[in-house]
Amino acid sequence: MNGSQAMVKTLLDGGVDVCFANPGTSEMHFVAALDQATRMRCVLGLFEGVVTGAADGYYRMASKPAATLLHLGPGLGNGLANLHNAKRARSGIVNIIGQHALDHLHNDAPLNSDVEAVARPMSHWVKTTVSATQAAADTAEAISQANSQPGRIASLVLPANCAWEDADPGKYTFEPACVAAAPLAETVDKIAQLLSDPEQAKQTVLLIGGAGMMEKSTWLAGQIAAKTGCKLFAEPRSMRLERGRGRVNIRPLPFPVDGAVKALQGTRNLVLIGATDPVAFFAYPDKPRRVAPTDCKITHLATPVHDVFATLEALCDAVGAASQTPAQLATDLALPSFVDGKPDASNIGMVIAGALPEHAILVDEAVTSGRQLADSIPYAPPHDCIDITGGAIGFALPAAVGAAVAAPDRRVVALVGDGAAMYTVQALWTMAREQLNITVVIFDNRSYRILRGELANMGGPQPGENARRMLDLDAPDLDWVSMAKAQGVPAVKTDTLAGFDQALKKANATPGPSLIALKI
Amino acid sequence: MNGSQAMVKTLLDGGVDVCFANPGTSEMHFVAALDQATRMRCVLGLFEGVVTGAADGYYRMASKPAATLLHLGPGLGNGLANLHNAKRARSGIVNIIGQHALDHLHNDAPLNSDVEAVARPMSHWVKTTVSATQAAADTAEAISQANSQPGRIASLVLPANCAWEDADPGKYTFEPACVAAAPLAETVDKIAQLLSDPEQAKQTVLLIGGAGMMEKSTWLAGQIAAKTGCKLFAEPRSMRLERGRGRVNIRPLPFPVDGAVKALQGTRNLVLIGATDPVAFFAYPDKPRRVAPTDCKITHLATPVHDVFATLEALCDAVGAASQTPAQLATDLALPSFVDGKPDASNIGMVIAGALPEHAILVDEAVTSGRQLADSIPYAPPHDCIDITGGAIGFALPAAVGAAVAAPDRRVVALVGDGAAMYTVQALWTMAREQLNITVVIFDNRSYRILRGELANMGGPQPGENARRMLDLDAPDLDWVSMAKAQGVPAVKTDTLAGFDQALKKANATPGPSLIALKI
Repeated sequence: MNGSQAMVKTLLDGGVDVCFANPGTSEMHFVAALDQATRMRCVLGLFEGVVTGAADGYYRMASKPAATLLHLGPGLGNGLANLHNAKRARSGIVNIIGQHALDHLHNDAPLNSDVEAVARPMSHWVKTTVSATQAAADTAEAISQANSQPGRIASLVLPANCAWEDADPGKYTFEPACVAAAPLAETVDKIAQLLSDPEQAKQTVLLIGGAGMMEKSTWLAGQIAAKTGCKLFAEPRSMRLERGRGRVNIRPLPFPVDGAVKALQGTRNLVLIGATDPVAFFAYPDKPRRVAPTDCKITHLATPVHDVFATLEALCDAVGAASQTPAQLATDLALPSFVDGKPDASNIGMVIAGALPEHAILVDEAVTSGRQLADSIPYAPPHDCIDITGGAIGFALPAAVGAAVAAPDRRVVALVGDGAAMYTVQALWTMAREQLNITVVIFDNRSYRILRGELANMGGPQPGENARRMLDLDAPDLDWVSMAKAQGVPAVKTDTLAGFDQALKKANATPGPSLIALKI
Repeated sequence: MNGSQAMVKTLLDGGVDVCFANPGTSEMHFVAALDQATRMRCVLGLFEGVVTGAADGYYRMASKPAATLLHLGPGLGNGLANLHNAKRARSGIVNIIGQHALDHLHNDAPLNSDVEAVARPMSHWVKTTVSATQAAADTAEAISQANSQPGRIASLVLPANCAWEDADPGKYTFEPACVAAAPLAETVDKIAQLLSDPEQAKQTVLLIGGAGMMEKSTWLAGQIAAKTGCKLFAEPRSMRLERGRGRVNIRPLPFPVDGAVKALQGTRNLVLIGATDPVAFFAYPDKPRRVAPTDCKITHLATPVHDVFATLEALCDAVGAASQTPAQLATDLALPSFVDGKPDASNIGMVIAGALPEHAILVDEAVTSGRQLADSIPYAPPHDCIDITGGAIGFALPAAVGAAVAAPDRRVVALVGDGAAMYTVQALWTMAREQLNITVVIFDNRSYRILRGELANMGGPQPGENARRMLDLDAPDLDWVSMAKAQGVPAVKTDTLAGFDQALKKANATPGPSLIALKI
């Protein structure tokens, strides 16, 4: 047994049985080891951003890490943007990154680079295996790191000789390297006391982040709100939201600074539960950096690495809300019918909510077109949403791949702007290869619409030639039906609400992937 | 005038008048400044790998740096692989990388990351601007770094507030930060003396790298070889080769280890001129790491940062070859006609050589299909070739964009395997947008053919399900004609040599971009 074989056995022993991969020559022994391990599901991405984004999407739905297989520093570099999103989501991932044989490193062959240095900014844990006999133990350590609660990005650099030299697998435990702590009872009591005063409670916001948007947590938050009268918000971009009819509808803080400031206006007490002090996504010359009122008192009841569910449970008990019917329950709402016409951000949400199958997984990277989607959520059947936590675009298509691999019985609906979709457009091929149950909706607005808005916000004259050429995706228009066809995904285009409704319902009911280009 | 405006003025003052860009919100003030600078040519890439690869291709043909505009750590991450190739080519590039405003960094907004850390592995020089008043001076320093001989990757991190706050442009010189030194006369004389002995000369190889494959250098090398009887080789992957009929035909060392070892067999003296001690591209368990014979004496006559032309000139003088007709002149060769049939690596070279317009620019990323291309080069008209120096695939399409922007009057022919083309397939759109004179040839072999070979070389059984699924690009086949159409590039497919010949001649004669998918 060589180092690779010992590693693959260890991955399987540790419950890591999916490997999103884009290997190169230095990983051929690892590929051979994967080849012998028929229990391992290997999913090829034609670009590493697909591989890492898929591992993120997989973790969010499977709640356990997948492995990635990446080729040296440049291959890892290609995967960094989606590792950034995954790190912000606190997803657990085991990256296996090939490196030259240790006795070849000093020769500085053309593909040589400092792989650890490339990994570090987007990883929680980085290690280079120094011998084949150490490879399995290092793999076990990487799995333990990724198994942490919340998850961690573990990047294991594998020199080629450690992959091909002799090794033994060994026996390992895969206990989480870090676990989420419960909150301090004293702080819980203090917040409970605060909330027991109805006047104070009215001016208190619970801001919920991390894994706190899972149904069992939102239920508790809803009970606390019902009992005390406090307000609830979710962090702007959550790693996973269980929402829709029958669930507590907690709106995310708006993405634009002004909207977030307005949402928190009048808040005297901001209680952070798995969330961080909310800040502007970007700084602007004349806008605040932090969005909470300056005189607002902030309590870090649970940081993002605390146990958010346990915190909400403790607070729910402390305020005596355990048998309360939650506030903000989205239930018994009849979906309003829509009037056909030109689709835009204000009306597409209702179509999406109406066409969503029960327990679908919505992957949301509709940066501008999806902003008003929250209005429609209470009308949608219960579903999950996974969001672009780190703001690095090129997330939705790869994450949809991973989510569909993790949850093959559920329909995945990826909402993505044309600009973002182009970043990792190679994911379409993997959807076709694996026949994943994914509906891709491209909001075809032929521009980086968000940047158009940002430039307009700066004031000044209308954009000239140079700005237009950097912000518009027209001349030529992208032909999304051909783009999908090129990669084996059936596709249609439409520019009416009724056409969108019909196409979406059809796609959601058809096994395998489909793409809908919605011109807006 | 704000920091961005001062920077853009400084770029133009420093001769940097092309900006390959993919901006985000934090770069909007820079975009506005570019918008006012009509002399700056802004070229949008729909993915950052396109942006950095284009800057590399641009430098190789323009011999001066372009700027890139990238969005924070993830945007830079997306561009790392092609920066790796550019660093290995010693191309000069000025990267402008947006960062959050300095007073927003500590808030750790979702897109925050350590931008300098991401930049460092693939840059020669990294700096963060700390105030708007410093922005122009830092830009000038970055240009000086990029202007070094050979070029350097200069990465300037621009916090948003330094882009929008008040500044003055200032006056700067843009002298190269580092210049290439001439060789030591003593070492030149020693090599000349060695070469004066015909027996020794016969067993001597001059290995030429860096900028040494430009016509004026290869001419000198040919003169030295004619006079002394020494052998000539080029480094396996050069930043730019001027070659074809009427030029000295110096073959690159073969890429596979065995071929390289064989090529250098019997060499007693290896003289490195702008090259490094040749090593295997990858390590293998039972193959050598260095490819020169172990008893071969190696002289570093000129390192890659020395002046290669001056070195060859001095050596040519020292051996008294200044009026010699060069050896290995590719001249008066009639192109053999080809027999129609199934195209493969052995016969496509003749078609390419025959269809190449004079002074074309060949961008070569045909990793397996292009291996025997060197056989056909002496028959081709004079042309330039730019090669994937760092081995990070996804190079050819972006580099073709940059080369075509640098040399609008010359035809660019990009040769690329289907696997590599998918990495940065978004470059097709920029070709269409800018109506660049590029012919893209996709070698459509539906696999990572090189990896298939590497796996087979390891011995062992035929690949099983997992290996096949990681190395083959079939199921579904990529439809390259649709892929091109999707991005506005006219395309045809063919699977015969005659069809390829006809399509290539037509594409090369048609203004704007075309794509040919050659099934092999």
